[in-house]
Amino acid sequence: MAGVDYQPLLDEIAAGVRPQIGRGAVASYIPALAGVGIGHFGMAVADIDGQVAGVGDWRRPFSVQSISKIYTLALVLAEGGEDVWRRVGREPSGTPFNSLVQLEYENGIPRNPFINAGSLVVTDRLLSLTGDARGALRTFLRAESCNRGVDFDIAVADSEAEHGHRNAALGHFLADLGNLENDVADVLAHYFSQCALAMSCRDLALATGFLARHGLRGDGSRLLSVREAKQVNGVMLTCGAYDAAGEFAYRVGLPGKSGVGGGIVAVVPGRCTVAVWSPGIDEQGNSVAGVAALDHFTTLTGWSVF
Amino acid sequence: MAGVDYQPLLDEIAAGVRPQIGRGAVASYIPALAGVGIGHFGMAVADIDGQVAGVGDWRRPFSVQSISKIYTLALVLAEGGEDVWRRVGREPSGTPFNSLVQLEYENGIPRNPFINAGSLVVTDRLLSLTGDARGALRTFLRAESCNRGVDFDIAVADSEAEHGHRNAALGHFLADLGNLENDVADVLAHYFSQCALAMSCRDLALATGFLARHGLRGDGSRLLSVREAKQVNGVMLTCGAYDAAGEFAYRVGLPGKSGVGGGIVAVVPGRCTVAVWSPGIDEQGNSVAGVAALDHFTTLTGWSVF
Amino acid sequence: MAGVDYQPLLDEIAAGVRPQIGRGAVASYIPALAGVGIGHFGMAVADIDGQVAGVGDWRRPFSVQSISKIYTLALVLAEGGEDVWRRVGREPSGTPFNSLVQLEYENGIPRNPFINAGSLVVTDRLLSLTGDARGALRTFLRAESCNRGVDFDIAVADSEAEHGHRNAALGHFLADLGNLENDVADVLAHYFSQCALAMSCRDLALATGFLARHGLRGDGSRLLSVREAKQVNGVMLTCGAYDAAGEFAYRVGLPGKSGVGGGIVAVVPGRCTVAVWSPGIDEQGNSVAGVAALDHFTTLTGWSVF
Amino acid sequence: MAGVDYQPLLDEIAAGVRPQIGRGAVASYIPALAGVGIGHFGMAVADIDGQVAGVGDWRRPFSVQSISKIYTLALVLAEGGEDVWRRVGREPSGTPFNSLVQLEYENGIPRNPFINAGSLVVTDRLLSLTGDARGALRTFLRAESCNRGVDFDIAVADSEAEHGHRNAALGHFLADLGNLENDVADVLAHYFSQCALAMSCRDLALATGFLARHGLRGDGSRLLSVREAKQVNGVMLTCGAYDAAGEFAYRVGLPGKSGVGGGIVAVVPGRCTVAVWSPGIDEQGNSVAGVAALDHFTTLTGWSVF
Repeated sequence: MAGVDYQPLLDEIAAGVRPQIGRGAVASYIPALAGVGIGHFGMAVADIDGQVAGVGDWRRPFSVQSISKIYTLALVLAEGGEDVWRRVGREPSGTPFNSLVQLEYENGIPRNPFINAGSLVVTDRLLSLTGDARGALRTFLRAESCNRGVDFDIAVADSEAEHGHRNAALGHFLADLGNLENDVADVLAHYFSQCALAMSCRDLALATGFLARHGLRGDGSRLLSVREAKQVNGVMLTCGAYDAAGEFAYRVGLPGKSGVGGGIVAVVPGRCTVAVWSPGIDEQGNSVAGVAALDHFTTLTGWSVF
Repeated sequence: MAGVDYQPLLDEIAAGVRPQIGRGAVASYIPALAGVGIGHFGMAVADIDGQVAGVGDWRRPFSVQSISKIYTLALVLAEGGEDVWRRVGREPSGTPFNSLVQLEYENGIPRNPFINAGSLVVTDRLLSLTGDARGALRTFLRAESCNRGVDFDIAVADSEAEHGHRNAALGHFLADLGNLENDVADVLAHYFSQCALAMSCRDLALATGFLARHGLRGDGSRLLSVREAKQVNGVMLTCGAYDAAGEFAYRVGLPGKSGVGGGIVAVVPGRCTVAVWSPGIDEQGNSVAGVAALDHFTTLTGWSVF
Repeated sequence: MAGVDYQPLLDEIAAGVRPQIGRGAVASYIPALAGVGIGHFGMAVADIDGQVAGVGDWRRPFSVQSISKIYTLALVLAEGGEDVWRRVGREPSGTPFNSLVQLEYENGIPRNPFINAGSLVVTDRLLSLTGDARGALRTFLRAESCNRGVDFDIAVADSEAEHGHRNAALGHFLADLGNLENDVADVLAHYFSQCALAMSCRDLALATGFLARHGLRGDGSRLLSVREAKQVNGVMLTCGAYDAAGEFAYRVGLPGKSGVGGGIVAVVPGRCTVAVWSPGIDEQGNSVAGVAALDHFTTLTGWSVF
Repeated sequence: MAGVDYQPLLDEIAAGVRPQIGRGAVASYIPALAGVGIGHFGMAVADIDGQVAGVGDWRRPFSVQSISKIYTLALVLAEGGEDVWRRVGREPSGTPFNSLVQLEYENGIPRNPFINAGSLVVTDRLLSLTGDARGALRTFLRAESCNRGVDFDIAVADSEAEHGHRNAALGHFLADLGNLENDVADVLAHYFSQCALAMSCRDLALATGFLARHGLRGDGSRLLSVREAKQVNGVMLTCGAYDAAGEFAYRVGLPGKSGVGGGIVAVVPGRCTVAVWSPGIDEQGNSVAGVAALDHFTTLTGWSVF
């Protein structure tokens, strides 16, 4: 599959989604995100050999937000932390991503690693395993994306912390229920940093390659077992698009993970990864033009599972 | 893809899953199901041209239970009832399949058509559209499976009705919230019959072919639009395995729907459908040997999405 | 305390609450109730010797609705059914009177006998104990109120049944959870009849006398033990006014039970019972003028607990 | 009523409850409480003129815990903060005292001021009104109890803070939902201090006198209006005994507030206040011997409302 020229495909998609750009609304729960222009659109495809093609604002960094949850999870599994599955489930939640209700009824075991409570547990585990969750994440992402400029946006992280009462509530609740190993404040700090990662479509497409390569990193070394890579892809397919996982599944038909910054990463196992960005998000938190672009992508390539 | 000889594959799978047969427990919530021997195993593959291969008890009818929810949904869409999506969602539920809680908090709109409340709404719609939901379903399934013997097991249907207080509660609750068009008793009678359909792996594999053929029936006529077929497959992938949709997604990686009778149907769009049956089910209600067989199937064929 | 002349007090109260009469709205969930004129007001006091005084429409029968739940509970306890406390709690619910959520989370044990689910369990118990819950209730109320005209309003009962999907849902749910002894349809029929009792303020004040007499009936025979009478009064104080028990407690400060027909009965243990009726109810289901009248009553007599 | 000699009554009660002393278990959620001996028992009555009688360990300070919630509420109302009723309800909760579920479903408005979330809101209001909630509380309690030794137990407060993740979760959740005016950390610090107040039965009986005097302080000045005093008493009656308000209401029949330290304060409006302490608490958090003593008290005096 490697060697395909994705440029014409990307150009066609970019033209096709133009009417969708600017739809939805830019995330405004923190000031640092609200200032992003809604008219941006970028898309990149990286094949499993690391060849990248892109269109539009594909080299421009944006706030990846929840997309980072993929990498934290992968690093925990890579570090031997598969016991994290005893502390977080792998099933869709059916409740908003930041709900405390599910947690109370299910005794502190978050339903999956992509709702906020679940990601806090994963971050906590990574912190225990590495001593520096934030640093481990940055090191990994810089290597995979071949970009030493990948970094946290301090202003965004500070803004997250300042407006992070819901996440703080989740953190303290997890601690109360015995499902955090580290100090709540430490876990939150690492969590807010990870959400504040600034990366471009190009960076994301490359950094997610291990999921298209059944667990192999860009340099050919093994990050995850085949089984673990399948697990992560499976969780992405059923839980990756907030409370619109069903809609995303049938429209795109690929494992994917979105962020409220307007980014989405999708995986075609064995073939390639796709990253798209456009800041206008719908009520479920998914980029309107981004979902449309991925819909075009799977329709044009026939690579949807459906 | 048509023309593949699936027999060697099925034989290999049957040999591979032998240790799993007899694991789990036979569904016992109604006496009529509790009497089934746990040692059965059957599996069938139908390609998109209608060629069928099978192994084990693949011609022996069993109680399809929730698998029937696929066909009711498809018939509603085929009859022009796509407005049913205003009355039922397409997202995973995160609560047990027969919970009333979600329904109360979300004002009577079931999360998806495969939880019981959702299927009651779909059955209600089919009843309004056809005047005879049960009859329309049987006619369709007999035609698609080329088997005039497909029928409801009256003993099972009666047993369902007798022990059906939870479903009756759901029905009356939906009626109270304005989300049923017909009499609760009528809807329940049609619903219990549909659960009591007796079909074999062979029948199911054939009858589900329209989802592999992007909406075309066995005779080439169109049942669903391509988009609708994708929708149904999407809902199957995210909501088809009760509260183990995530686990099923990563292990099998195909749209599928299970029933507590021990049957599972899965779809490889553009290629084939697979039906498997073994009555021992796990705590989530999915056949232990059935999931294992499908896991083998996608591993051996490489047709999983992951 | 007997021998007090309540007439001047009642006249003063009736004059004082005049501005409140007509406020709120008549219950409209069933047509048979919606036709009642909102301008009615009646009030009666019965002392523990059975002397009754009244004002306004105090002799006019109205639909007692949930007030009947007191008597069903008392009869169950009187018939030796104190084991009913294993099947229903005695604590306030914090959820709407007809919610299914509490029931699901607390495994089918309703929080108290005055929410609908709890009263269904009590009615079910009375049906088992007597063979005819409805008949036992009527016989008791006719005797205590010295009025052979006390009866069920068939039109109201039929209307309740026709619009009773929520209660049917509760009934089937209780049956599913193993907390009903009789057929759901039978229990519902008796329940709807009990709600449809037509009684006047005079009748209610007299019929509730056993709670002011620490368990003794009008003829001096013992219906409840002193402890049981305290229990019923306690449940009335904390759970008698739907979701406004706290408001009712501080404004009235007496054990009381309201119905959506606009009636309220209150008890001054050792002294008297008070019944009031005015059909305009507030959002919590309590008569606006009725609560105001009881507020006046306890303020003027100083018999509030506070 | 003043002038009654309560000593013989207290002696009789103390003798009567002896078999109950030592039952239940000492609260162990924080180490600082777990060390208290379970065999203590003390009881005090203060009449409305400030005469106090006592028995057993009635002069020994203990951790008042949730009893302090009464005084915080009273001070807020006294300081003109009746708008606090827009931010917290007055109805029983039906969910555990520290649940986040109710809060999420009811958009951040705690059901009453005696569940933890509600008390956090009240503490927050007092902090805004006074600048020093903790200090205002201590000043008030010292004055009312005529005891300059009333103070916070720093060890207990620190222990509360260290094990206070659930309360921190509630605090951050309230902040997220816009129902806190001050910093979460500040509100929590004041809240933990208030829980850690060390007072004796004597102190508590005196300090609660304003609720028996319809709002008047010990020096005759007005703290609360008559209506406000009734409100506080009403909330105590329906919400004062955690999830056993109904049981408490019928057994004791008086407005009361308990704490997990084993203390309970009850009010006989117009007559007296009663404080009792014994550290063994039941599953609902109420002192076993304490409830029994109050049951005796109302039975012997006939002052129960029932």
